[in-house]
Amino acid sequence: MTDLPRSARDLIESSALAHLVTLNEDGSPQVSIVWVGLEDDEIVCAHLPRNRKVRNIERDGRVALSIETDSLSELGLREYLVVYGTARITEGGAAELLNRLAQTYMGEGSDFPPIPDPPPGYITRIKVNRPAGVGPWSD
Amino acid sequence: MTDLPRSARDLIESSALAHLVTLNEDGSPQVSIVWVGLEDDEIVCAHLPRNRKVRNIERDGRVALSIETDSLSELGLREYLVVYGTARITEGGAAELLNRLAQTYMGEGSDFPPIPDPPPGYITRIKVNRPAGVGPWSD
Repeated sequence: MTDLPRSARDLIESSALAHLVTLNEDGSPQVSIVWVGLEDDEIVCAHLPRNRKVRNIERDGRVALSIETDSLSELGLREYLVVYGTARITEGGAAELLNRLAQTYMGEGSDFPPIPDPPPGYITRIKVNRPAGVGPWSD
Repeated sequence: MTDLPRSARDLIESSALAHLVTLNEDGSPQVSIVWVGLEDDEIVCAHLPRNRKVRNIERDGRVALSIETDSLSELGLREYLVVYGTARITEGGAAELLNRLAQTYMGEGSDFPPIPDPPPGYITRIKVNRPAGVGPWSD
């Protein structure tokens, strides 16, 4: 994978939300907001059901995700990270990953997902091809 | 255009940033974060240069945009708006629209863009086909 600068990795591992874009069968974009983290140098997010983004990625792995920062550029515009990548889906482990990410996104000690016997689910694993956006990673 | 509920219109006219997705020539997604507003029932954003998203929309008008809210769902997840739409580009008026939006995004009295003689630029005008995401607009 393309090496992401520390600043980008820190943002991905923060509680900032990721806007994940996948491609529908007709080529149109599909967007949802997800929790993300890093695992083995890939960006990961988890899905309990086999939802549209899982099916989209299985058909076409080209994805993008964008994350806002709390920082402003010299012009006073919000800095943000965009990552262009290639995604793949693996089965199982979704509830465990969601629970790990919930500690960051909801707070330490969070119990998520709040269901007694979650399905194995799916994990999206994204190899970074190119960082973009406006911030230290775009210099 | 599809009627957007008041809650979605209010969010589009707030200072929340929009993650705008366009499609590159090879069909891959392109993302940038933009200021948005409403004009004649279309979602509008402005660009001074003829940048990649302008060229992408001229070739393929299928776009998506997503905006985070400050509200949490019953599950404790962030609510957000996604809009799927069809965009077109018009020439001119970019600096004026940026200045209008700056009053919301940067604060009343903001002087933006901070350049003496801005080019006419381009405006993206998005007809909403379908709202999505998680919030009052997805009920």
